Amino acid sequence: MRSFPQQAVIREVGLRDGLQSIPRILPTKHKIEWIGDAYAAGQREIEVGSFVPARLLPQLADTAELVAYAKTLPGLCVSVLVPNLKGAEHAIDAGADLMLVPLSASRAHSIANLRKTPDEVVAEVARIRAARDAAGSKTLIEGGIGTAFGCTIQGRVEQSAVLRYLHALLDAGADRVSIADTVGYAGPAAVGELFGKARAAAGERFWCGHFHDTRGLALANVYAALETGVARFDATLAGIGGCPHAPGASGNASSEDLAFMLADMGIDTGIDLAALLTLRAKVARWLDGETLHGALWRAGLPATHAIAATTTA
Amino acid sequence: MRSFPQQAVIREVGLRDGLQSIPRILPTKHKIEWIGDAYAAGQREIEVGSFVPARLLPQLADTAELVAYAKTLPGLCVSVLVPNLKGAEHAIDAGADLMLVPLSASRAHSIANLRKTPDEVVAEVARIRAARDAAGSKTLIEGGIGTAFGCTIQGRVEQSAVLRYLHALLDAGADRVSIADTVGYAGPAAVGELFGKARAAAGERFWCGHFHDTRGLALANVYAALETGVARFDATLAGIGGCPHAPGASGNASSEDLAFMLADMGIDTGIDLAALLTLRAKVARWLDGETLHGALWRAGLPATHAIAATTTA
Repeated sequence: MRSFPQQAVIREVGLRDGLQSIPRILPTKHKIEWIGDAYAAGQREIEVGSFVPARLLPQLADTAELVAYAKTLPGLCVSVLVPNLKGAEHAIDAGADLMLVPLSASRAHSIANLRKTPDEVVAEVARIRAARDAAGSKTLIEGGIGTAFGCTIQGRVEQSAVLRYLHALLDAGADRVSIADTVGYAGPAAVGELFGKARAAAGERFWCGHFHDTRGLALANVYAALETGVARFDATLAGIGGCPHAPGASGNASSEDLAFMLADMGIDTGIDLAALLTLRAKVARWLDGETLHGALWRAGLPATHAIAATTTA
Repeated sequence: MRSFPQQAVIREVGLRDGLQSIPRILPTKHKIEWIGDAYAAGQREIEVGSFVPARLLPQLADTAELVAYAKTLPGLCVSVLVPNLKGAEHAIDAGADLMLVPLSASRAHSIANLRKTPDEVVAEVARIRAARDAAGSKTLIEGGIGTAFGCTIQGRVEQSAVLRYLHALLDAGADRVSIADTVGYAGPAAVGELFGKARAAAGERFWCGHFHDTRGLALANVYAALETGVARFDATLAGIGGCPHAPGASGNASSEDLAFMLADMGIDTGIDLAALLTLRAKVARWLDGETLHGALWRAGLPATHAIAATTTA
């Protein structure tokens, strides 16, 4: 018998990783409704946006406003992405609970996307830590290691590089580290291996996995990660969030399919699946015309599911 | 480090479980081309059809002709489904290498679909075994236990019932047993548990898992099954094969996505992924207008994949 975590957290990143890949701008009032409904459905960690210049990502220009709203919901961990010190200063000012600083383990991808080498990102994290501490802020710093299983530009990414950056991020002052399969290159055997090593190296400070379903393996990857003891996963409602290098391909792990899998495994996420499916239907209406993903919404909950009677699916 | 089988078999069941759920009749010449191309791509086990009355499944009326063709391909295990003794006699006459006799662990599903109780199916397997032996045939008998994780009609299906039928099928003369999640109710924790017990009970005679992707968990379920040592899985090209109780829902595990996952895990299937993707494109043209599934065909093979350079995706 395998043992799994008894509880797990699905961090909703649809408002950031999802919406940033969709050209249309979802109105702030809809985002606020999304955050409120996700909270009502039991989600307790939400990445509401990204503190990047509005000219780069106009879809996320209302991030400060969303943080302000989300902070009114008791017990919600309000998370944002920050690419650099300037973004971190905004996150600290806004009072976000957590700021994720992305680092690409692929040097080529890092330079192409962030215009910094991975080591320069590590140095930026040290500056962010100093600024956070100087401000007397409690905003947690998460170093998110992307392209950890390979990269469309560089190809192979060595495990040793990922583990080296993991240590470097912690040494530079990150409170947490996470590992992301940014472009959908991970398979479950590789996940089990790398996540097992990351857990052995960083313990509870390695706390989150981020998978894309580009080639259909997101949930198998989550399962392999669960076996290493990791119990926190990024996901997006309706699986939104494509990969610019694979047009039309599936996006992130779908929050509702992941929530179903975890519930089926007897792992408590605190999520009301029926309420999450209702929210999915609402977001799908808002995003009418966009490519959405996931399987549960179509099939509905099985007759054996404890709350199947309450679902509208 | 987990250990996995070094080799695994993907049994292509698209020509049976897939095509039987599609009203249109694929011409025999296309089916023959499909079988030939799958064989050329490295597939060595194919379920080519079902010996059921043509009035019930006109899509599969050419099964005898397909067996005759498939038998000309050296080293191919030619498999058919047979619902009863009469079908088994046809399979024996045709010289199929294996005949799968379905048994529904859900009594309600069994009566609704097969018009027999599970115990009556067990008794039929004993008659099939007697007929096979009397004919001096080498056609293997596989008892396939369906609705093993729950059922849309009955709801819960107990593990103990599945294991009881597994023993009963072997006692009645089945050479092999397999377990199927007919309606997409399985999750990976339940698969790991039931498959572990089935392996412990039947050893190598429990040899195949059959998963539907109705709620997105097919590949996670395969991964959990691999961990129990099972190394043979049914799948359909383009994931065809819906569930009549969940219109529009995903079908079987997709052969090409599964082949990719196994390759990524370093498990040898003998399959040329690029050739399989080319065949998928051909079958998709033949089935234009039908609902197809799978993720790999859209994203293509990753740059890190050994044979990525040869793919046309």
